[in-house]
Amino acid sequence: MNKNEISEAFQQLQDHICRRVEQTDGVSTFQEDKWQRPEGGGGRTRIIKGEGVIEKGGVNFSEVHGKVTDMMRRNTEITADQFFATGVSIVLHPNNPHVPIIHMNVRYFELSDGKYWFGGGIDLTPHYIVKDQARAFHQGLKDICDKYDSSFYPKFKVWADDYFYLPHRDETRGVGGIFFDHIKESDSLTKDQLFNFCKDLGEAFPELYKYQVSLGKDLDFSEREIDWRNTRRGRYVEFNLVHDRGTKFGLVSGGRTESILMSLPATAQWEYCKPIEPGSGEESTLRLLSKEIDWINA
Amino acid sequence: MNKNEISEAFQQLQDHICRRVEQTDGVSTFQEDKWQRPEGGGGRTRIIKGEGVIEKGGVNFSEVHGKVTDMMRRNTEITADQFFATGVSIVLHPNNPHVPIIHMNVRYFELSDGKYWFGGGIDLTPHYIVKDQARAFHQGLKDICDKYDSSFYPKFKVWADDYFYLPHRDETRGVGGIFFDHIKESDSLTKDQLFNFCKDLGEAFPELYKYQVSLGKDLDFSEREIDWRNTRRGRYVEFNLVHDRGTKFGLVSGGRTESILMSLPATAQWEYCKPIEPGSGEESTLRLLSKEIDWINA
Repeated sequence: MNKNEISEAFQQLQDHICRRVEQTDGVSTFQEDKWQRPEGGGGRTRIIKGEGVIEKGGVNFSEVHGKVTDMMRRNTEITADQFFATGVSIVLHPNNPHVPIIHMNVRYFELSDGKYWFGGGIDLTPHYIVKDQARAFHQGLKDICDKYDSSFYPKFKVWADDYFYLPHRDETRGVGGIFFDHIKESDSLTKDQLFNFCKDLGEAFPELYKYQVSLGKDLDFSEREIDWRNTRRGRYVEFNLVHDRGTKFGLVSGGRTESILMSLPATAQWEYCKPIEPGSGEESTLRLLSKEIDWINA
Repeated sequence: MNKNEISEAFQQLQDHICRRVEQTDGVSTFQEDKWQRPEGGGGRTRIIKGEGVIEKGGVNFSEVHGKVTDMMRRNTEITADQFFATGVSIVLHPNNPHVPIIHMNVRYFELSDGKYWFGGGIDLTPHYIVKDQARAFHQGLKDICDKYDSSFYPKFKVWADDYFYLPHRDETRGVGGIFFDHIKESDSLTKDQLFNFCKDLGEAFPELYKYQVSLGKDLDFSEREIDWRNTRRGRYVEFNLVHDRGTKFGLVSGGRTESILMSLPATAQWEYCKPIEPGSGEESTLRLLSKEIDWINA
């Protein structure tokens, strides 16, 4: 597949995911803003908000191209002049504290000298961690990975643990998932197969989330759970603004701020040294915000 | 003055400011946490929260010392082995949207080879900008600066405009104030005079804020103003987590996270492409979030 076919397929993936997320939400529909990047390319930002399952979320497609900047060169071995990047990025913040926040990204990067790679990730951030739900999520991701390469899940799961981590809190963002970057064709997998892996992940995303939603959306909650949800959202803000590479890269490279920061929740809160009740769901969640938990066998 | 005298004076400054802020708040008192830094030094974090003028705020003192880290060397010409740093840092988030957020920091840094410098800043972040209030604030800062060096205010005002700025929003954080770093004794000012400049700023801080509070604290507000206050707080979070050097340095260098992030508000919110009513106070505020406004003559 060439870059235009990949970009086209990512747009279809965005369409597909939006339709399925709307069904899962049950109330709201996506509103689209098309935008152009002055230096080349643009995107379709799609935002959903309301009283359904999702309080605030975005499913964004972008395809940008142009001159390789000094910033891009800094951390990689790029010698080419021109780049092309396309991808789909998603963050969904639910209303009900018993439904997890979810994030997904798949992306394709190509240089004018012909070098290319795929990257992406999916991770789940429950406000309250339930082991069975985390297991189901990881099993779903492992099933997709295993269709392509049995080394993917173990490798990409650890990569996610390391990536979706807040060192200043010594907490993972949630129960993790998978993260991968710079994957290229090899003896065992062609470029088309790598693309299909990203596409499979993208198509599985709304189904994996639908299952998570089904387990939490009808559970009761009170001010206490809302307070905790907003506190966990505060951590999500910390991760995205302090650590997330995509967010940082976007903001400093002159990306469209409103599209990049669609990942932030409608509300968040911070309490100094928030007290945690021993034996509570909040306490057990904090204890499980840890790397190296083998969720599939937890 | 030597470093121990400066540290002692900063602790007295913290005591003084806490007393005065409590009077201005009218309801709440500060709660103190003392902490130790494993590598050397520690601090006194003092937090105020409640239903008075201040919803959430902190007045922190710290005195840390130890081995110069690679991180510290990166952006400066430090060759010495050991550093000593002491300072007072303040952020106050008020309940009433008509009262501005305020921030102040004064700090002293010394190296084992005898090099030292002072730094600091004060800036005001009104949720709704009122020109007369911004003028009074800047005039107060200029009066203090002018007692020491007539070049200070013009120089430090521009420095604040450049520092308290969100490039990804093309907005200043608020109406600015003054910012300075690496100031040392010179032909015109001794080290003691520079310390007195920092002390004068610190002592003026609660009086300047008391005046700002008096103008806004009894004004009515509704859901609309709370919504806007929380949106502006969202920008404050963006600045502190994406740009603020003190916050970033603290988080990556293993500082006490809860003390560093006392600067974050109790609540914040983000709305995608928030609509702004033409001719409203929100719109005029956005228009005034701009560098290079000469507030004293505005």
